[in-house]
Amino acid sequence: MANPTAAMLVIGDEILSGRTRDANMYYLAGELTKHGIDLKEVRVVSDDADAIVLAVRQLSDAYDNVFTSGGIGPTHDDITADCIAQAFGAHLDVRDDARAILEKHYATTGLELNEARLRMARIPDGADLIENPVSSAPGFTLRNVHVMAGVPSVFQAMVASVLPTLSGGDPVLSQTLRVMRGEGEIAGTLSALAATFSDLSIGCYPFQKDGAFGANVVVRGTDGARVDAAMTQLARELEL
Amino acid sequence: MANPTAAMLVIGDEILSGRTRDANMYYLAGELTKHGIDLKEVRVVSDDADAIVLAVRQLSDAYDNVFTSGGIGPTHDDITADCIAQAFGAHLDVRDDARAILEKHYATTGLELNEARLRMARIPDGADLIENPVSSAPGFTLRNVHVMAGVPSVFQAMVASVLPTLSGGDPVLSQTLRVMRGEGEIAGTLSALAATFSDLSIGCYPFQKDGAFGANVVVRGTDGARVDAAMTQLARELEL
Repeated sequence: MANPTAAMLVIGDEILSGRTRDANMYYLAGELTKHGIDLKEVRVVSDDADAIVLAVRQLSDAYDNVFTSGGIGPTHDDITADCIAQAFGAHLDVRDDARAILEKHYATTGLELNEARLRMARIPDGADLIENPVSSAPGFTLRNVHVMAGVPSVFQAMVASVLPTLSGGDPVLSQTLRVMRGEGEIAGTLSALAATFSDLSIGCYPFQKDGAFGANVVVRGTDGARVDAAMTQLARELEL
Repeated sequence: MANPTAAMLVIGDEILSGRTRDANMYYLAGELTKHGIDLKEVRVVSDDADAIVLAVRQLSDAYDNVFTSGGIGPTHDDITADCIAQAFGAHLDVRDDARAILEKHYATTGLELNEARLRMARIPDGADLIENPVSSAPGFTLRNVHVMAGVPSVFQAMVASVLPTLSGGDPVLSQTLRVMRGEGEIAGTLSALAATFSDLSIGCYPFQKDGAFGANVVVRGTDGARVDAAMTQLARELEL
């Protein structure tokens, strides 16, 4: 059976303007692979309501799971919760369970739970909260969309809260062979290998080091014996 | 007048599996901002023809420019040229101008221009070549889609070849104020500032350092005097 699929939606002008280098995509990709969920697509959109709503609807329809990153803080440019609610026609307001979490947190810190911070307790009706052990303000899951913070430490903690609740498939195993020849030298061999092992994904990633050309050949699949077999055949054919 | 818009399409299983951390998005975002082109959306898709063709069509329709990264090498998993041709109904075959570039390059290196390498001379009819000063195999521009390599050094060189040929707008200027208070403290001030300076983009990016909460407030716009005015007002209101 095929593994469950996923998409990621990164929300934020700061990524698209080149100010901030996204760290969450790389992290989520690795965690999903370990969990046996196939990340099929990532989109990055700006803090624009129409763009967010459209992307949420399209990705939610097309994939088993959608993970969003960014736009759930207390400031005016944090519009993700509004957009998720709009995408699914859900009512959005401060919810008692989320408010209770914030009240407890701010009571401890001695800071005021002001109007801006209370924005972070706005959760769509029907959504489940996602725990945030770092800074307490929760994320949420509505239908198949998991809404999480953009700050990497919080994002990672929320991924750790959500992943165990999701059905995973077979973890994808991969082996890499580093070959100090140009891609063009080994392309024929790889193409034949890919035809023989059509159940595996065989990728070739070129690099240059000290003026010489090389390539990492990566064989991926859920059946470890098949991955082994492909790597053995590859090494033999390349006479390594 | 509004600046020209752009989207980026990153093609490659290696990004979505978490094996490779994408470097090209961050680079392109910065270069486009300097050139006055607004990067509005990024998509990452796997080495899947249907997914690539669909994304190319949607992004080409929606934005002034599309930049793709990855999938134009000599191996079986390099299917980007085929997909671009398919997306626009263009004929694809080895083209004499591209073949001449490869012949010259491989004559110098003493390597054979074999069948796999000749794949890199497959260019859709009607496309303009993009120069590749790093490893010679060209990219190409078909309509408003600029097709470039995934290897960062080659991608960057191709961006440098293409950007001067594109109409730019006003470069977006930005100023950042680092505030050692939580987002929730300053959210009200920022919201009022955003209403006053509705021609600017005002973003707030929280961080934690040594257990304390802080935020970078970034004001962006094409009019330097307005950006200055907003920053001055912000600093005064926050009593910095």
